[in-house]
Amino acid sequence: MKKPFQLFICLLLVSGMLALSGCVDDTPATSDTPDTSNINQSELQNDILYQVSTIDALLEGLYDGQLSMGELKEQGDLGLGTFDALDGEMIVIDGEVYQMKTDGYAYSVDDSVTTPFAAVTYFETDEAIVLNGPSNSSEVALLVGESLPSKNLMYAIRIDGTFEHMKVRSVPAQEEPYPLLVDVIAVEQAVFELENVEGSIVGFWLPYYVEGINVPGYHFHFIDTDREKGGHVLDYTILNGTVYIDQTAGFELSLPESAEFMDVDLLRDKGDELHTVEKDDE
Amino acid sequence: MKKPFQLFICLLLVSGMLALSGCVDDTPATSDTPDTSNINQSELQNDILYQVSTIDALLEGLYDGQLSMGELKEQGDLGLGTFDALDGEMIVIDGEVYQMKTDGYAYSVDDSVTTPFAAVTYFETDEAIVLNGPSNSSEVALLVGESLPSKNLMYAIRIDGTFEHMKVRSVPAQEEPYPLLVDVIAVEQAVFELENVEGSIVGFWLPYYVEGINVPGYHFHFIDTDREKGGHVLDYTILNGTVYIDQTAGFELSLPESAEFMDVDLLRDKGDELHTVEKDDE
Repeated sequence: MKKPFQLFICLLLVSGMLALSGCVDDTPATSDTPDTSNINQSELQNDILYQVSTIDALLEGLYDGQLSMGELKEQGDLGLGTFDALDGEMIVIDGEVYQMKTDGYAYSVDDSVTTPFAAVTYFETDEAIVLNGPSNSSEVALLVGESLPSKNLMYAIRIDGTFEHMKVRSVPAQEEPYPLLVDVIAVEQAVFELENVEGSIVGFWLPYYVEGINVPGYHFHFIDTDREKGGHVLDYTILNGTVYIDQTAGFELSLPESAEFMDVDLLRDKGDELHTVEKDDE
Repeated sequence: MKKPFQLFICLLLVSGMLALSGCVDDTPATSDTPDTSNINQSELQNDILYQVSTIDALLEGLYDGQLSMGELKEQGDLGLGTFDALDGEMIVIDGEVYQMKTDGYAYSVDDSVTTPFAAVTYFETDEAIVLNGPSNSSEVALLVGESLPSKNLMYAIRIDGTFEHMKVRSVPAQEEPYPLLVDVIAVEQAVFELENVEGSIVGFWLPYYVEGINVPGYHFHFIDTDREKGGHVLDYTILNGTVYIDQTAGFELSLPESAEFMDVDLLRDKGDELHTVEKDDE
């Protein structure tokens, strides 16, 4: 802990939609209310985190696209992932998909482009935390972690703010035979350090029991407000901003039925590789 | 292996629906084709295994019902689970729910009854294996395991046949404060041995990565053809019958947002307890 928190914490918990007025003055540009008329309206299913394939399959080098952006965007308006052949980092924000390549820039993505691994949800703020004063990524992680109502549910998270420092990475498209993700990261990832940048962190906090399926704990991607630069978040310092949290009790997993997915050995222990791939160990 | 297999194996793999005629002569009484008009028709989502709560929450004694039978039956016509307060073993077959109590008998269940843990799917046969000649449960498990197209997908399984021997158990309704499931099994489970009974085994084979969420490997319940007797399967010998397998690439999890679920410690290692609860260790 480099310095004490200087945070004005504003916690708002609501059961459904939230009226942020009066407490948080910069609400995110919320997308249109999703059309849920064709979704079963059980109380247990109002919020669904949708995911294609598993993180362990991605670690094993299964980079062939399984689901199109057009289909993915039907499942949510906020999330992250990667693209066919591991061609960059994906961020989904306000219903738009951006591809953040190894040149550090963000590109719009055609609906026909596919993803081998992605997770999205229709984002609705359940809780907001205002951050005043500089905080590093560990401090924000601790603060948000303490504010999560339960470690047994899933949370989509969006952090809008001004970042004194933002360290992101991306990965280049691969050719078959695909190498393991840990080997791509070791040799080919491109790292960018952005300074004094406004933008949004987008991602999830997921419970331990998704191990093998997705990333337990935090997993964040970043894009700037101009939608020009971003990548997979390795580290950051935020000057001020707001953390928006969407508690999610529904989870939907679509497994590929490709020969590659059916044949891959998912039993190999990849815990260390996941840490290496997702975190900043410098 | 007590004796060699005397099996006529008939494997039929189809991508969608299956015409069993000419190969398997006793197809299961299939339920009506489910209405999927309100389900997103992505190729990746045609088959969905739906589950409420997690096996680890059940192991921790979270027995309060979360979802009604009426709601559960909207999610599938075949499956298993338990009832509010852990009041017996649930089997869902041909769209009907039966409650198998500690008297050994099966009872119809009102749509308003709730479940703390259940998993169902709309069953469509993708593969069928005819069993001719006696096989014990280990032999059938091995045979079915070898015939599964991949250890990375999920499978609903139904075995219709004549069982020389069927050993099942049930558990009685609990009162709060609820004991752990492993303690209920140790003290209160009722075991029944049925001889020369016709009926159906219903359940799932699930991949390792559902650990903490559901039961990796096999999990079966049984009910006889007259829908009079049954329970959680501990062991059996089948004289002849047919194994029907439904490959499922979609998984949907509904997590309770009750105070009990949000507060329970799901991090405690319960691997040994799961084995004790699910298996026959006599």
